[in-house]
Amino acid sequence: MRAGQDGSLDPTAMTVAIDAMGGDHAPGAIVEGALAARAELGCSILLVGDEAAIKEHLPGGAVPVGVEILATTEVIAMADEPSAAVRKKKDASVVRAAEAVRDGRAHAMVGAGNTGATMAAALLRYGRIRGVARPAIGVPIPVPFAQPHILVDGGATVDCKPEWLVQFAEMGRAYARLRLGVDEPTVGLLSNGEEPGKGDALRKETFKLLDGQPWFVGNVEGRDLMSGHPHVIVTDGFTGNIALKTVEGALKAAAGLVFTTLGAPEAKAAADVVAPLLLQGVTDYLDPDTIGGAALLGVDGVCVISHGSSSARAIVNAVRLATDCVAGGFVERMRDAIVGDDITEPTREEAHAG
Amino acid sequence: MRAGQDGSLDPTAMTVAIDAMGGDHAPGAIVEGALAARAELGCSILLVGDEAAIKEHLPGGAVPVGVEILATTEVIAMADEPSAAVRKKKDASVVRAAEAVRDGRAHAMVGAGNTGATMAAALLRYGRIRGVARPAIGVPIPVPFAQPHILVDGGATVDCKPEWLVQFAEMGRAYARLRLGVDEPTVGLLSNGEEPGKGDALRKETFKLLDGQPWFVGNVEGRDLMSGHPHVIVTDGFTGNIALKTVEGALKAAAGLVFTTLGAPEAKAAADVVAPLLLQGVTDYLDPDTIGGAALLGVDGVCVISHGSSSARAIVNAVRLATDCVAGGFVERMRDAIVGDDITEPTREEAHAG
Repeated sequence: MRAGQDGSLDPTAMTVAIDAMGGDHAPGAIVEGALAARAELGCSILLVGDEAAIKEHLPGGAVPVGVEILATTEVIAMADEPSAAVRKKKDASVVRAAEAVRDGRAHAMVGAGNTGATMAAALLRYGRIRGVARPAIGVPIPVPFAQPHILVDGGATVDCKPEWLVQFAEMGRAYARLRLGVDEPTVGLLSNGEEPGKGDALRKETFKLLDGQPWFVGNVEGRDLMSGHPHVIVTDGFTGNIALKTVEGALKAAAGLVFTTLGAPEAKAAADVVAPLLLQGVTDYLDPDTIGGAALLGVDGVCVISHGSSSARAIVNAVRLATDCVAGGFVERMRDAIVGDDITEPTREEAHAG
Repeated sequence: MRAGQDGSLDPTAMTVAIDAMGGDHAPGAIVEGALAARAELGCSILLVGDEAAIKEHLPGGAVPVGVEILATTEVIAMADEPSAAVRKKKDASVVRAAEAVRDGRAHAMVGAGNTGATMAAALLRYGRIRGVARPAIGVPIPVPFAQPHILVDGGATVDCKPEWLVQFAEMGRAYARLRLGVDEPTVGLLSNGEEPGKGDALRKETFKLLDGQPWFVGNVEGRDLMSGHPHVIVTDGFTGNIALKTVEGALKAAAGLVFTTLGAPEAKAAADVVAPLLLQGVTDYLDPDTIGGAALLGVDGVCVISHGSSSARAIVNAVRLATDCVAGGFVERMRDAIVGDDITEPTREEAHAG
């Protein structure tokens, strides 16, 4: 069965293909997370990668019930140029994971390796949904004490046209319904001011196309990130990547300031009380391992991208998101969201894939 | 004497024009800050704005020695369209402040009102430095326990050409020498990955033009913001504004998480110890009122822009930056930085100014 074709599936009836070789802590943390996901969610797991390396991390070297290995001989490294690597390394774990979904052997894939290669593998092996101009990454932006925003595009498509951003908004809404459980998600256009006239040429054109939609709240600013409003924040993949990583840099700097301050001798006793509470808050609301992976929107299947330094817990949460997407009819939702659009043209990856 | 023409000036020999009507807390906080700057730095102050409103905030309604009022009848509001407002409201406080610098009545101006209008007033009344294609804002990005980065452009020029970004880098270095006291400031190009091939079309072209400069460290990412390296981060005004305000949003959210956690009943006693230490760290390193204003680079005079919610302390720091710029030969430094460049073309504001 094709991933996402049946919205009624239960996780126990699903198989998730996992790129066992992708990520800073692969394959150890990935295999550990896969086994935990199997135990916790009940889904079957297809571990894709170097068989010997994977077995080293299986208790007693034995493949447990509900887990299979798809043996591959190649790996795409973090430093590899994504599209070229996907074209050349046809037996790469991430490529075979995408093929397993395409061929109906798995319902969804999860990858924590080279993000560009994971996207390219899904794009080229799944194909795009008919009518989708460009894929986009839907990434959660953390919000303390609340649900995350969905930022679209987190980095899939760097040079965008206005009508592509409109599709990102439509797909972002469809995804937010599933991911956040909100019936009518609101969408803002990330710009350099709230007024309608603000923005560069791309934003001004996009604003005109979105204006009048009941769910469009207008321009939002960088300072609205992490506020929880609106549900979906739309931007091109270049700006989205900058915003996403700026959040990361700012939170890291803030954490440095807080924990350095707590490390002062006069704060010792108080820090013993406060530090665990703060760490709990960080874990609950700011830790990417908790808030979960990103989803590739616009391709004809479910592909969840987890960050490079994913722990076993991050993998469990990524597999959970993947099964939620399959159960929630992710692909049909995207298809329905862009009905009437017909702005397809080949991407650079597709044009080069031959 | 023209602002910045004499690098040997002492603050006590300088006059700083201040837009008394600009900012959320104007004119009260502005006048208070102006008097404090006069007392602390010894410079003369030209308060530009509604005379009666200014006098209400002067002790006893009397204008003290070293302070003058330049009476004006119009104000540009935060919501006004900047360029149009500068063209129409010829007696606006911010316009007259810029004219005072142009006409040699003051050495520098400080404004905390409508940022676009402050920039437009400086651009149109000072004019650009010969050879500068577009102005840019040099904004400090805070770094805990260290000097800030200088982000260029923080929002002056949203649609950029590659060679304009090269000038932003050159002017950013000249400004960082003065602002950070660093002899050879390093420059990074803000992009969506560190590898040379990363970026949208604008970044890829700009990278080629910067590549080979000994001070160019290559692409930097959003997560490098607030790390302290490199000294100068170059981007277009659209992306710069997003990055700057994303830092603001993320720090606000982090502060919310920390202080909500400290507000829990079980943390009460510890919070009484820790909260003042944390607030001190925030005040020292993250508070915009402390880290100071932004400078408009590329115009033929000194214009310091303080944020809209500036307190009296923010105004003192903005005036200090203005006097530092004049004393340090700000305009000559910019002129020297772009020697050999000749890519001047009229800006939209200039073309419309008639």
